[in-house]
Amino acid sequence: MKVIYFDNNATTQTLPEVVEKMLPYFSEKYGNASSIHRFGGSNKKVIEEARGQVAALINANPAEIIFTAGGTEADSTAIYSAVNSYPAKKHIITSAVEHPAVLEVFKKLSTQGYRVDFIGVDKDGRFDMESFNKAIDAQTALVSIMWANSETGTIFPIKEVAEISHKHGALFHTDAVQAVGKVEVDVKDFDVDMLSFSSHKFHGPKGVGALYVKAGVRFLPYMIGGHQERSRRAGTENVPGIVGFGEAAKIAKATLNQYKENVAPLRDILENGLLTAIEDAKLNGDKTNRLPNTTNISFGYVEGESILMMLDANGICASSGSACTSGSLEPSHVLRAMGVSFQFSHGSIRFSLSKFNTKSEVDLILSVMPAIIKRLREISPFHKPLCGCETK
Amino acid sequence: MKVIYFDNNATTQTLPEVVEKMLPYFSEKYGNASSIHRFGGSNKKVIEEARGQVAALINANPAEIIFTAGGTEADSTAIYSAVNSYPAKKHIITSAVEHPAVLEVFKKLSTQGYRVDFIGVDKDGRFDMESFNKAIDAQTALVSIMWANSETGTIFPIKEVAEISHKHGALFHTDAVQAVGKVEVDVKDFDVDMLSFSSHKFHGPKGVGALYVKAGVRFLPYMIGGHQERSRRAGTENVPGIVGFGEAAKIAKATLNQYKENVAPLRDILENGLLTAIEDAKLNGDKTNRLPNTTNISFGYVEGESILMMLDANGICASSGSACTSGSLEPSHVLRAMGVSFQFSHGSIRFSLSKFNTKSEVDLILSVMPAIIKRLREISPFHKPLCGCETK
Repeated sequence: MKVIYFDNNATTQTLPEVVEKMLPYFSEKYGNASSIHRFGGSNKKVIEEARGQVAALINANPAEIIFTAGGTEADSTAIYSAVNSYPAKKHIITSAVEHPAVLEVFKKLSTQGYRVDFIGVDKDGRFDMESFNKAIDAQTALVSIMWANSETGTIFPIKEVAEISHKHGALFHTDAVQAVGKVEVDVKDFDVDMLSFSSHKFHGPKGVGALYVKAGVRFLPYMIGGHQERSRRAGTENVPGIVGFGEAAKIAKATLNQYKENVAPLRDILENGLLTAIEDAKLNGDKTNRLPNTTNISFGYVEGESILMMLDANGICASSGSACTSGSLEPSHVLRAMGVSFQFSHGSIRFSLSKFNTKSEVDLILSVMPAIIKRLREISPFHKPLCGCETK
Repeated sequence: MKVIYFDNNATTQTLPEVVEKMLPYFSEKYGNASSIHRFGGSNKKVIEEARGQVAALINANPAEIIFTAGGTEADSTAIYSAVNSYPAKKHIITSAVEHPAVLEVFKKLSTQGYRVDFIGVDKDGRFDMESFNKAIDAQTALVSIMWANSETGTIFPIKEVAEISHKHGALFHTDAVQAVGKVEVDVKDFDVDMLSFSSHKFHGPKGVGALYVKAGVRFLPYMIGGHQERSRRAGTENVPGIVGFGEAAKIAKATLNQYKENVAPLRDILENGLLTAIEDAKLNGDKTNRLPNTTNISFGYVEGESILMMLDANGICASSGSACTSGSLEPSHVLRAMGVSFQFSHGSIRFSLSKFNTKSEVDLILSVMPAIIKRLREISPFHKPLCGCETK
């Protein structure tokens, strides 16, 4: 069965042309980049070329890019660097709807002497700026707010939050894992201090990511024990992974406009089609200010997991939330923070598109979804009687 | 120029058959293994198959394997897990000749309220068991001793150290990055609590490693923020990397005897040839108890870096120590701990073989090395006059 892949916020296809670039570095040019001999040492240049490509995607200087094993490591590195660089400051701020890679580290720090504010969002997932302004003070070491929400796609007011953070002497970090490669991310224009992103979210390989650290910002490494990455991240350089990351960044930069021109309109056809055809279906998130590839819809009175299984039976891949929280039976922490009711938060589905999805794929989803929801509601104990009459 | 690669302790060629196994997971079966849909979720099985292969290489149970991004992350994870699991114990022990990925974490902990003993070695690099027995006590949370030294190949008495550690109620961790895949490593027989190893040291891909954690041993994750690896290591699973690691482990287990049968004899020809042909050349390390693929020889009165550059000009890749410490002008901390003199520690070269090195490659090294050393000694300010006469 052909796979209809609408789960691109979970991960993306590594482009064949990206894999092509990686291949020589496995079995031919396999030397350790930290070697003195040319066979290994020449891979340093290769890494620097990739660093330039990755930096260009977010308008950073290459020296401001630290390669990591992914977004999670980048997030931990940023947060611990900030708090350990300013040990006298014992207050940190994040949002209630962050990815667990940020949220869990903040929760841990809250048990280790840190006062933590988890800023809420409104019913459309918009950041509560008023609460943020009240929370921040001179004791705040770090503000970490995601660029875009992985579940709803809602984009946060990064520029404004960064500016306010700086006014209070706090560092500003953003988990931009879902934004980079899909919308324009400019670290200079937005004046962020640290920014996490990950290769596999925009058609690069898994197992490699980066942390941007603005020149001049205090930094302490998380992974120590080697001189790699100018002593900012120890461990043998993953040369093929870094090369693939670089190539994917180059392609993402060159094709970024496709998200606005092709992906968003297709997403809108899917979204409007579902909202029109299915009753008790509600959009989650900020319709006007969000990622071009994401839609999150709650179908009342049904279980998201059941929807996903029936979509899967039709070859359609979607998600009920972050893959990193799958396995948990709790409804999404993002939707709960938005105040979505129990009956609706359990039945939420995220469709996340890539540049490679087509109109005929969208049509297929639109053709099967109404019947799936109808069937599930028929067997749902939560659903209102379909006939309109009451049981006696 | 053909590359004569004798730097396999730095990194190895990823075998073409390993890359072949990885390839489908980049662009075809690219789903997120934590997904509910079969397209992604089926990669869970693939990861579990690799976990079985990796576990088999060290005689562990699959559930005792946690995939990481490499040896460095595995080391940090093990050390922090041990000290944070037993917060009342404030004493930790390691050796003075560990890889920086262990040594630097211990040094950091020594500034954070931990009493740290760095156990020394004798002139042949053998672990000082007497000092160790004196150092360990009921306050010791962790003993971390490498299985085999990366620079000299010297193998440490892991079984004995593990047993003594347990008698005192301490956890025992070993950095076995250089041992796994080259000599038999049996975690059950040796009764270690935690063991770090890395794929790229035995012909698997870079960017993936593992930490073995014995069932029942207290464990706290280092990378948090996702349910992956049964909540023991957060971050999207690097499916292609893990698949490659598994395949490399399977091949390593099946071909382990080649190290004893082919690699060690070839190494001995190289070693004996160099020691015979070149005066003021001394073997570093325990000749009787070491890795089958490693020889470390000091050539008195010359700079190791100069030797490496001249070898490089002949297409020969070797190393002066750990790639992770290259860039540093200090002589090797391993050789210093062994008491090797300044004149000899600066001129040390490590040749580390793989199953793929040949007799003709060894012959080539033996044919060029005497002339290289002679030439460098002619221009060395440290060398004794070659003519035997004194300058007036």
